[in-house]
Amino acid sequence: MKVLFLNGPNLNLLGTREPEVYGRTTLADIEASVRARATELNIEIGFRQSNVEGELVSWIQEAKGQFDVIVINAAAYTHTSIALRDAISAVGIPTIEIHLSNIHAREEFRHKSLIAPVCRGQICGFGQKSYILGLESAVYVNETKK
Amino acid sequence: MKVLFLNGPNLNLLGTREPEVYGRTTLADIEASVRARATELNIEIGFRQSNVEGELVSWIQEAKGQFDVIVINAAAYTHTSIALRDAISAVGIPTIEIHLSNIHAREEFRHKSLIAPVCRGQICGFGQKSYILGLESAVYVNETKK
Amino acid sequence: MKVLFLNGPNLNLLGTREPEVYGRTTLADIEASVRARATELNIEIGFRQSNVEGELVSWIQEAKGQFDVIVINAAAYTHTSIALRDAISAVGIPTIEIHLSNIHAREEFRHKSLIAPVCRGQICGFGQKSYILGLESAVYVNETKK
Amino acid sequence: MKVLFLNGPNLNLLGTREPEVYGRTTLADIEASVRARATELNIEIGFRQSNVEGELVSWIQEAKGQFDVIVINAAAYTHTSIALRDAISAVGIPTIEIHLSNIHAREEFRHKSLIAPVCRGQICGFGQKSYILGLESAVYVNETKK
Amino acid sequence: MKVLFLNGPNLNLLGTREPEVYGRTTLADIEASVRARATELNIEIGFRQSNVEGELVSWIQEAKGQFDVIVINAAAYTHTSIALRDAISAVGIPTIEIHLSNIHAREEFRHKSLIAPVCRGQICGFGQKSYILGLESAVYVNETKK
Amino acid sequence: MKVLFLNGPNLNLLGTREPEVYGRTTLADIEASVRARATELNIEIGFRQSNVEGELVSWIQEAKGQFDVIVINAAAYTHTSIALRDAISAVGIPTIEIHLSNIHAREEFRHKSLIAPVCRGQICGFGQKSYILGLESAVYVNETKK
Amino acid sequence: MKVLFLNGPNLNLLGTREPEVYGRTTLADIEASVRARATELNIEIGFRQSNVEGELVSWIQEAKGQFDVIVINAAAYTHTSIALRDAISAVGIPTIEIHLSNIHAREEFRHKSLIAPVCRGQICGFGQKSYILGLESAVYVNETKK
Amino acid sequence: MKVLFLNGPNLNLLGTREPEVYGRTTLADIEASVRARATELNIEIGFRQSNVEGELVSWIQEAKGQFDVIVINAAAYTHTSIALRDAISAVGIPTIEIHLSNIHAREEFRHKSLIAPVCRGQICGFGQKSYILGLESAVYVNETKK
Amino acid sequence: MKVLFLNGPNLNLLGTREPEVYGRTTLADIEASVRARATELNIEIGFRQSNVEGELVSWIQEAKGQFDVIVINAAAYTHTSIALRDAISAVGIPTIEIHLSNIHAREEFRHKSLIAPVCRGQICGFGQKSYILGLESAVYVNETKK
Amino acid sequence: MKVLFLNGPNLNLLGTREPEVYGRTTLADIEASVRARATELNIEIGFRQSNVEGELVSWIQEAKGQFDVIVINAAAYTHTSIALRDAISAVGIPTIEIHLSNIHAREEFRHKSLIAPVCRGQICGFGQKSYILGLESAVYVNETKK
Amino acid sequence: MKVLFLNGPNLNLLGTREPEVYGRTTLADIEASVRARATELNIEIGFRQSNVEGELVSWIQEAKGQFDVIVINAAAYTHTSIALRDAISAVGIPTIEIHLSNIHAREEFRHKSLIAPVCRGQICGFGQKSYILGLESAVYVNETKK
Amino acid sequence: MKVLFLNGPNLNLLGTREPEVYGRTTLADIEASVRARATELNIEIGFRQSNVEGELVSWIQEAKGQFDVIVINAAAYTHTSIALRDAISAVGIPTIEIHLSNIHAREEFRHKSLIAPVCRGQICGFGQKSYILGLESAVYVNETKK
Repeated sequence: MKVLFLNGPNLNLLGTREPEVYGRTTLADIEASVRARATELNIEIGFRQSNVEGELVSWIQEAKGQFDVIVINAAAYTHTSIALRDAISAVGIPTIEIHLSNIHAREEFRHKSLIAPVCRGQICGFGQKSYILGLESAVYVNETKK
Repeated sequence: MKVLFLNGPNLNLLGTREPEVYGRTTLADIEASVRARATELNIEIGFRQSNVEGELVSWIQEAKGQFDVIVINAAAYTHTSIALRDAISAVGIPTIEIHLSNIHAREEFRHKSLIAPVCRGQICGFGQKSYILGLESAVYVNETKK
Repeated sequence: MKVLFLNGPNLNLLGTREPEVYGRTTLADIEASVRARATELNIEIGFRQSNVEGELVSWIQEAKGQFDVIVINAAAYTHTSIALRDAISAVGIPTIEIHLSNIHAREEFRHKSLIAPVCRGQICGFGQKSYILGLESAVYVNETKK
Repeated sequence: MKVLFLNGPNLNLLGTREPEVYGRTTLADIEASVRARATELNIEIGFRQSNVEGELVSWIQEAKGQFDVIVINAAAYTHTSIALRDAISAVGIPTIEIHLSNIHAREEFRHKSLIAPVCRGQICGFGQKSYILGLESAVYVNETKK
Repeated sequence: MKVLFLNGPNLNLLGTREPEVYGRTTLADIEASVRARATELNIEIGFRQSNVEGELVSWIQEAKGQFDVIVINAAAYTHTSIALRDAISAVGIPTIEIHLSNIHAREEFRHKSLIAPVCRGQICGFGQKSYILGLESAVYVNETKK
Repeated sequence: MKVLFLNGPNLNLLGTREPEVYGRTTLADIEASVRARATELNIEIGFRQSNVEGELVSWIQEAKGQFDVIVINAAAYTHTSIALRDAISAVGIPTIEIHLSNIHAREEFRHKSLIAPVCRGQICGFGQKSYILGLESAVYVNETKK
Repeated sequence: MKVLFLNGPNLNLLGTREPEVYGRTTLADIEASVRARATELNIEIGFRQSNVEGELVSWIQEAKGQFDVIVINAAAYTHTSIALRDAISAVGIPTIEIHLSNIHAREEFRHKSLIAPVCRGQICGFGQKSYILGLESAVYVNETKK
Repeated sequence: MKVLFLNGPNLNLLGTREPEVYGRTTLADIEASVRARATELNIEIGFRQSNVEGELVSWIQEAKGQFDVIVINAAAYTHTSIALRDAISAVGIPTIEIHLSNIHAREEFRHKSLIAPVCRGQICGFGQKSYILGLESAVYVNETKK
Repeated sequence: MKVLFLNGPNLNLLGTREPEVYGRTTLADIEASVRARATELNIEIGFRQSNVEGELVSWIQEAKGQFDVIVINAAAYTHTSIALRDAISAVGIPTIEIHLSNIHAREEFRHKSLIAPVCRGQICGFGQKSYILGLESAVYVNETKK
Repeated sequence: MKVLFLNGPNLNLLGTREPEVYGRTTLADIEASVRARATELNIEIGFRQSNVEGELVSWIQEAKGQFDVIVINAAAYTHTSIALRDAISAVGIPTIEIHLSNIHAREEFRHKSLIAPVCRGQICGFGQKSYILGLESAVYVNETKK
Repeated sequence: MKVLFLNGPNLNLLGTREPEVYGRTTLADIEASVRARATELNIEIGFRQSNVEGELVSWIQEAKGQFDVIVINAAAYTHTSIALRDAISAVGIPTIEIHLSNIHAREEFRHKSLIAPVCRGQICGFGQKSYILGLESAVYVNETKK
Repeated sequence: MKVLFLNGPNLNLLGTREPEVYGRTTLADIEASVRARATELNIEIGFRQSNVEGELVSWIQEAKGQFDVIVINAAAYTHTSIALRDAISAVGIPTIEIHLSNIHAREEFRHKSLIAPVCRGQICGFGQKSYILGLESAVYVNETKK
């Protein structure tokens, strides 16, 4: 089983960005903990980050036939990108939406996710733990793939 | 560590209700799987269901000093109950919101959760697995309690 | 054939409440006239009232296998209860929505019924006659059950 | 007692139009069943259909002094015609609004009826039976005319 | 003269709930101060709390003929309960709406009161003093009863 | 100088329709008073009424080259007819909008006029006097035609 | 008979302000033409202008017992002043709203008049002629005073 | 193959109406060019115009069994007529929506087409060329009829 | 202790204005009753009224260092004046908002108070008694000043 | 004559993406059919696709002086990109908006095109035929260039 | 060159009002620094403050022929005064809108400026420096006056 | 001191794009004038432009530790990019928003800036002078950095 983790804009700043909201863990720290847990579960991991909407779209497209599940933290593009939504819908790979913070407890414009309706589920609010929960839900989603 | 699972209206019908959305698993099945995983994690579990908003409010109030974390699937009351929100906010026990289905992929009126802003995080869309993920996130939430 | 009539909050006050809108007939009067007409039609009747949303939810759940059709005057909960909607949708018993007054001619917030989309039809504005029409439509609904 | 049934645009297509919504009964079939029931109740019936909003307005005007009650299925004009509303309000004949389908369970723009606030009541969702229920409610409305 | 004080959901937690908003006074403290002042004014007091919307509705119904004025702090139900509104409107007892905090200075969804239009007046923002002011306004309301 | 008065749906009922709003004057009475005043001002008058939106549209089209100014009381079509708006805009004859009642003091849906932006001015609220004022403003509009 | 003409903010600039909208006539020119026509009709005229909302409010208050009808061009305050609305409503003198330009053909925020619902009628779009029409409608309004 | 071209209100004025928007071509000119191109494509053409909504509805109904495709420029009724939408939906003939001007670049109220959701496609903004493109798309639509 | 009572536009008309809403008591009557109660409580009173928004703003500014609490009935400016809100916020004197009528039971535009979020509390609906309750709440507010 | 076809995000997936909506034709198939038709019409074609908004913007900029007309299927960016709109507006090349599916018959958020107001026209709903129609309209647009 | 600085309500309180937002500088301090910089630039300065909307309106009117540019900090009236907007538009003097704080980062109701559309530009968020920047932009605006 | 100027999509077209709005100055001209003024002020300048949202995001990230202040003209992305907002918020460098035109006087969708709430201030409407004012405000912002 192979899972692709995609990270959207500004997540490369993790650990420096508004630490009172996201903590001091870097994206590399998160990748390491995801890979550690994946090894236990015998899952192969892809892990990428981009600030460019179109690059994220292309990575989703390229995942076709390469990955069984996508776990995506689309960050700001969660709320503005129909292109990401269309990409997820087009490739047909089961996708799980995750967020570090509880987006429903932040500014009004972060409550609405444009990609949620084409994802299998949403996990938010548990910091880096959201990634581990995302990985575990990926196992479930893969087993119950329609 | 002790975790209280609260279930809102109509969840007692699980297994009979719109099976194409929720599957055929009953609430008792879910409780059993939660208890099994909790035993592995050495966590004590409370597990209750009510169709009455006020009863759910009272259970949250009574959890004070009895439970470390609440995991709540408020079902329909998710979208209409300020009383549940106030109860969660008042008792100050870290609370996690879960749903069987991906509420963001259903009717517009199910996208907005009144309790989300006072919960630590939200997990939705993974069927009964949402309960197991809720339990695992509870461990994380308890460890990072502010 | 068996039909369950459910009555929501404050309908127990009928005959005292805003008589210029609802008239002086009591809920017992209505029940009597429904039962009289049901006898003619050879229909068995259940007839209940509650001020508690969750109790109405439970009665709908318990109707499963007991009644062929539900006729519901949900009163105030018509406009605020997703829990009632989910209950009706879950049990799968054909349900008819009735109201004493013409809700579309009253305050704006009474125009929208949350349960209407899961009911077979709506009858409103005919005072206690709405109940008799509800009973007669129940016969039709039962015959054309899908 | 005399009752006028008015039918709005496209109802002349009944039996051919979206049969999964309206069934295969024609408007002539409905008229026949209405007349049959009216004979039993000793009621005289007028029964007309037009695709032209202004023609329906004129028929309502001409009903003054000719009919005791109007039963109207205004179809599409239900949601767009203030002219029909004004006509009903102007002639002062008690009017009952009916629909074949449950308009509250269809597209958002069909939930709002512009004529409802000037009608005595609304019956929808019972196919051709809506017409018979409309006739029976007309008797009630005529007896309780203010 | 007899005045019924009704308290909605979570008010039983007073003194523990968000003390920076509501202070440390318990509901029992408030009841005591209300009774003390009522004794001075020669008024008989009823004082109840419930987390269940329908129970509050029933208490309002039962107040008919038992109390001259109702003073209600409906808490969360202020903003979601049409059933309470209908109950107040149906029994016809003059009712005064009170709140501990200034609801107009809190979250947007607390600005709108569904019961305000059927109450005689609103007092909010004065902590437990709101109850004393409610009692004094009850005297005025009773004297100017229409 | 020639002025065309156009009257929309239900105005043929004037004198019978909601007399507390419109008075007991008939449309024929109004026409007579308009013609009397027009004679004094040496103006030729056309005066027509229709319940059919498309007929009003056609009359506006035919006015081209026949009339200098149109005075229109579009009644219900004021608020629903883009076709009337387009007709007025297309023929280029200066047009004045009049109403018997003060539409801004009635139901919300009567506040918005779809034809106002293509008319030279609006006069409302003066009963049949609105027609006389419309005639006098027509003189002004004709003199200041751009 | 005595009529008070009130003019709101910036109308003292008439003749210099956006002449393509209002023309080059000054407010003094308008006053002169109103007085000329009033003399013919044997009406006594008051004519005032202020940029201060509160001063206009006071003038309306002082008109009580001094004037039979008020004709008001409230200019910008038309759309923002509840104080003017309350003043008109409080003194009970029949009031007519006028505007030089057709407010319904200008910016969206000029379409809504806060004072219209408490005025007898509205005349707009006829330049200085709006004042003369206002005067003539005042005669009608005075004769039909309720 | 037979194609029916339907034209809505005011299109009979083409060539005189706001020429800066629509040009000087008359509807007869357009019909001629459509017929010329149809002859080349061996298609039989119907071509009609009406200002009456109900007449357009009737023509759509009568097209059943007579025409393979409808091309409709509903003009103003595009934005206000649910009756046209229902007619198109009822007859089941593939329908193409066309407009002379780019409706999405005009007033806000012209952006929304009520008939678009029941049409196969929309072509707008190409003047009379929109009709030729409509004809050519009709060939495609007819070939790919489901 | 010193309390300033400020009264907004049209309150000088009290006793003449819409007596069915406000009663026949004049503002002088109210001032007298406030002063009488203040004497009992050993409080010094300022009492002023203005129709000019800016004058009310200035009085609030000048209250700095002169008064301990402000009680304000801003009347129409309650709903339109950000300037009053800013003044209250700037001087930092605890302020109480009062109204004669229950603003939440009147027109929609009176439900929203722009000054409420910067006031300590709101009292409305008790006629002149609102002023006495305002005075008594001022004592409480002064004692609990932060 | 030279025409540039621009294709937005995910169109490179054509033939795999939601085939029930778009069919099985690939973007290369479409390009081939466009080039074939262009050869007949003696038009030179540019044909490009990108998932990156900014790249599409740059291509529009570079088209200046290189192409006579742009035909753009902006896909998801149609509804979110003001940058594309500004680019089209800035370069001043006549632009035609096309879509494979009828965007007005899909999700609400696809009904609004941000680029439509700066395009000459819109063609949608005809699958790959939309591209051929786009090419033919380009000829018309080029001939009628202002 | 002459520049008029106008200051709206509560700006006379500067230095005392919410110092964490505006700092401790008084309006006199600001005037001094503006005058100092103006002397360097050889510009004559007018500098006024009023709490009365109508007075600000009058000062704008009187600036005609006296000043080349107006720099206005309308404070609260920025968001509520159409009268100020009309005054600026009427006198035709180029006007620059300034604010001490960044109004777009404060409460929602401060984001919308009613005067912005008739001003040449807006500068906000730089404390007293906003005035100096306003002065410097005035030089530019004066040089590029149309 | 070092200041980074960032320019969003289509600004590379300056001098060709809608000259009636932006003038004929190119971006290179602006850069030159900014550098000239910066030399006088002894400030080091970075100056970049991109059409790609993600590239602008990356440049903001890389500015960390390299620049003291950012001055950004985000052009179209001002209104659609949460990613830019998050980047500005994350790096914590004081940022100033500038625009050539007065965005508040243009289309409705340009009035709302998504980045404004995380910027120190906004300057718009002064053409290339906006850049010089931005530079001067940067000095102020740098001196008052918190």
